[in-house]
Amino acid sequence: MSMDATALWQRYQDWLYYHEGLGFYLDISRMRFSDDWVNTLQPKFDKAFQDLAALEAGAIANPDENRMVGHYWLRDPDLAPSAELKQDIVNTIDQVQRFAKQVHSGEIHPPNAAQFTDILSVGIGGSALGPQFVAEALGSVHAPLQIHFLDNTDPAGIDKVLAKLQDRLASTLVIVMTKSGGTPETRNGMLEVKHAYEQQGLNLAQHAVAVTGIGSSFEKLAKSEGWLDVFPMHDWVGGRTSELSAVGLLPAALQGIDIEAMLAGAKEMDAATRVPQIKGNPAAMLALSWYYAGNGKGEKDMVVLPYKDSLLLFSRYLQQLIMESLGKETDLDGNVVHQGIAVYGNKGSTDQHAYVQQLREGVPNFFATFIEVLEDRDGSSIEVEPGATSGDYLSGFLQGTRQALFENHRDSITVTVPRVDARTVGALIALYERAVTLYASLININAYHQPGVEAGKKAAAAILDLQKRVVKVLQESGTPLSLPDLAAKVGAPDQIEAIYKIVRHLDANHRSLTLSGDRSQPSGLKVAAS
Amino acid sequence: MSMDATALWQRYQDWLYYHEGLGFYLDISRMRFSDDWVNTLQPKFDKAFQDLAALEAGAIANPDENRMVGHYWLRDPDLAPSAELKQDIVNTIDQVQRFAKQVHSGEIHPPNAAQFTDILSVGIGGSALGPQFVAEALGSVHAPLQIHFLDNTDPAGIDKVLAKLQDRLASTLVIVMTKSGGTPETRNGMLEVKHAYEQQGLNLAQHAVAVTGIGSSFEKLAKSEGWLDVFPMHDWVGGRTSELSAVGLLPAALQGIDIEAMLAGAKEMDAATRVPQIKGNPAAMLALSWYYAGNGKGEKDMVVLPYKDSLLLFSRYLQQLIMESLGKETDLDGNVVHQGIAVYGNKGSTDQHAYVQQLREGVPNFFATFIEVLEDRDGSSIEVEPGATSGDYLSGFLQGTRQALFENHRDSITVTVPRVDARTVGALIALYERAVTLYASLININAYHQPGVEAGKKAAAAILDLQKRVVKVLQESGTPLSLPDLAAKVGAPDQIEAIYKIVRHLDANHRSLTLSGDRSQPSGLKVAAS
Repeated sequence: MSMDATALWQRYQDWLYYHEGLGFYLDISRMRFSDDWVNTLQPKFDKAFQDLAALEAGAIANPDENRMVGHYWLRDPDLAPSAELKQDIVNTIDQVQRFAKQVHSGEIHPPNAAQFTDILSVGIGGSALGPQFVAEALGSVHAPLQIHFLDNTDPAGIDKVLAKLQDRLASTLVIVMTKSGGTPETRNGMLEVKHAYEQQGLNLAQHAVAVTGIGSSFEKLAKSEGWLDVFPMHDWVGGRTSELSAVGLLPAALQGIDIEAMLAGAKEMDAATRVPQIKGNPAAMLALSWYYAGNGKGEKDMVVLPYKDSLLLFSRYLQQLIMESLGKETDLDGNVVHQGIAVYGNKGSTDQHAYVQQLREGVPNFFATFIEVLEDRDGSSIEVEPGATSGDYLSGFLQGTRQALFENHRDSITVTVPRVDARTVGALIALYERAVTLYASLININAYHQPGVEAGKKAAAAILDLQKRVVKVLQESGTPLSLPDLAAKVGAPDQIEAIYKIVRHLDANHRSLTLSGDRSQPSGLKVAAS
Repeated sequence: MSMDATALWQRYQDWLYYHEGLGFYLDISRMRFSDDWVNTLQPKFDKAFQDLAALEAGAIANPDENRMVGHYWLRDPDLAPSAELKQDIVNTIDQVQRFAKQVHSGEIHPPNAAQFTDILSVGIGGSALGPQFVAEALGSVHAPLQIHFLDNTDPAGIDKVLAKLQDRLASTLVIVMTKSGGTPETRNGMLEVKHAYEQQGLNLAQHAVAVTGIGSSFEKLAKSEGWLDVFPMHDWVGGRTSELSAVGLLPAALQGIDIEAMLAGAKEMDAATRVPQIKGNPAAMLALSWYYAGNGKGEKDMVVLPYKDSLLLFSRYLQQLIMESLGKETDLDGNVVHQGIAVYGNKGSTDQHAYVQQLREGVPNFFATFIEVLEDRDGSSIEVEPGATSGDYLSGFLQGTRQALFENHRDSITVTVPRVDARTVGALIALYERAVTLYASLININAYHQPGVEAGKKAAAAILDLQKRVVKVLQESGTPLSLPDLAAKVGAPDQIEAIYKIVRHLDANHRSLTLSGDRSQPSGLKVAAS
């Protein structure tokens, strides 16, 4: 589709979505679909709108796990399918607000200090990406508590965070987030943190709260150890859509972020995206654009380019939300489909000096999503040259890049928000959650399970089990063994390579065994217990 | 290619690269190429090795800009094609070391404090991504100076960094990095920082050093204002390969990072990758794997997964190095080729709880690069369960994911390093720089220019020029104007949409004009000077 400036301006206006309450704009005029093509998708959208309505009414939208999908109720509890669920949501928000207030006032404080000064959030996946995104977007240098994250099982990474907090551990509030307690990274992080507290003669329980499934083994542990509080993680809220549950609200409220405004922004966007038509529903317009870009098969990557530093982590948040939801092997009818949409990006105009060179001229394997923020800063700006501010440049770079991409036949979406505040962030979260829900219907997949994550856990457990057997065999063996002999004795002759990796790692950490021989020739290495 | 465990273990050993001096391993056994296919690429590699040798000898490897490409000389000055260039490199390293020593000792100190406590680095692209990667990888909580970055022209982002430094601005050393002074983001950042210093009654010049082209207008400015020092940015070093020039060495040395070890690691990897054969040259093995994965056309994305928190920013660093180098419209013969390789990733195992679901099961549009670090941490680890540490889990997750991807027909490369230290980081930088050089030869493109970045600058300048004309017309016009009338009066009837974006941005910031009317109908809006 080629058009002159007048036709483009007309297309811009025809497709422009504006939400007055949120001051929110969505522009999909630079996705080159035709009206005829949109019409062909109408039946799929009719079904998607019905699916979304059923999901919001409490249908089992995650058939593999036989679960309801309730994250939309979190910001509009009146929609919850039972009075009990509604009360549960309302109570949790109250509990979060009350707890944060008591921490801020010092009513809840650590044993050896008048106030908590820092938060250490231990969690991974949905229990990290949302809180990290929100902390980066809305956190302030002057926040009542500064937040830090342990989101991995990397010993050196854990040490670095703990070194930073070394002098303030006694006034650090630890939040451990895990639905069952069964996520190894989080369990390990908690144990490492507990050890650090013990090293300082402190008791983690007196500094910690849990966000976990009610009835989980982890809830029992926290209660039996006398942790400061326990907040619920509901089984009808998935990790990647949990930012507006206690998972996201608790750290936000503790940082002094207006969680009522976040919820209100999300509720308003939910309402706007309940409209059962494509044009006029921004989530549907996004889903339409994604479908168009990738032919409904994820053939193009989604590059997310917010022109605002505080939105740097939005793409990482969206990576999980979109790729974990849509990246599925089979559709709901069991057909092998290998679905998904790859998402990456950092921020503009910074990325213009990194990889936008390739976006403009190189492989046309993507579509871009620009995020524009109208308000430059709190307060006024100096002029960096007559009549121009730093913000004018930022704005000019966004316009220039969008235009250049289009001229080079690279499509883009532009989301425009008035400013980055709690309401806008809530609205953006809701917008993308709902676009994912609709798009998943269009391509007929279950967006609410993650079988590959479970499989990853099992694969690691198998390696750890193998490690235990390797160490046992070596301890029992009197002499150094070659890798094939070791594998045979372990009863895993097919797993020489895995065993080699295990012993190489143990040797590097001076644990249990030593490896000798020419390292460029693994088959000649000898392994001995140490 | 399907194979049993024994054949796979054989393939692993056949293709394993090990560098004893660096303790570095490269495993490309899980890229499913055949030996026959490798043989077909031999002629291309023969040429690539020749091109690389010529480049290192000082050939004009960047024909569009008629420049030599000299970043490999930085870590082995004896290779520089003239005594003058060699001396220049040696002198710069000396200057950096001397300056850092004087800052650390307090010999160089700010007017109102005995020591500098912080660094504020102002730069974008190559002047930010390398220093950020290195600071994250090697920076310590106990470093003599802590580093902060301004890498954009976002007013709110600038305000946030300056708010953090508010109380320490008087003891902050500002490094402004720009080859010519002509990069608007950096210029704007410097002016905003200068303003912040003035607000505190301080003079930026007494707190600042420049890293810039010798003879540039920016060098003249810094000298005339009496800045603390000026370090050279050579025209034979491109931004994305400047980490081992003053751009990267100065901030690293100031943070107490061992820059001699970084240079030595790079030099050792350079030597290892000068071997003119595929097997036995790790950069060639990477280039081979990339070519195989994407059919020499970037058909697959490169997902970079370091299983180590401190390498989080390696993928962002590689995004620039690879995508800006390879993402080109035309080849060296002028054919339109739309080349490149898309790069993204964060870290494992964290990403296993984000998008690895899609990698395992979804769109097979990528190949993975795992980065394994053998040493878990300084010191010993607690057991998180009998016989297992946090680091064993990290290691198990990497093995499990690599294996699961392969079983699902997703290829991967694994880079293994003994630990994350200055030497390893230098070696990794050199490895990827050289793989890019070789791959660029394979696909016959100029990896050393970035026409799209220049074009982006021009597009933004045109928008800013239009803004000035719009404001002028409005100030001269007595009455509110519609967008079409405004565009006509500005003499840019084809640019209504750009003008609309400009006035919407100015209005949101209460500058020069006001916008009135129904915002969902841009054509009905009226614009008036304010």
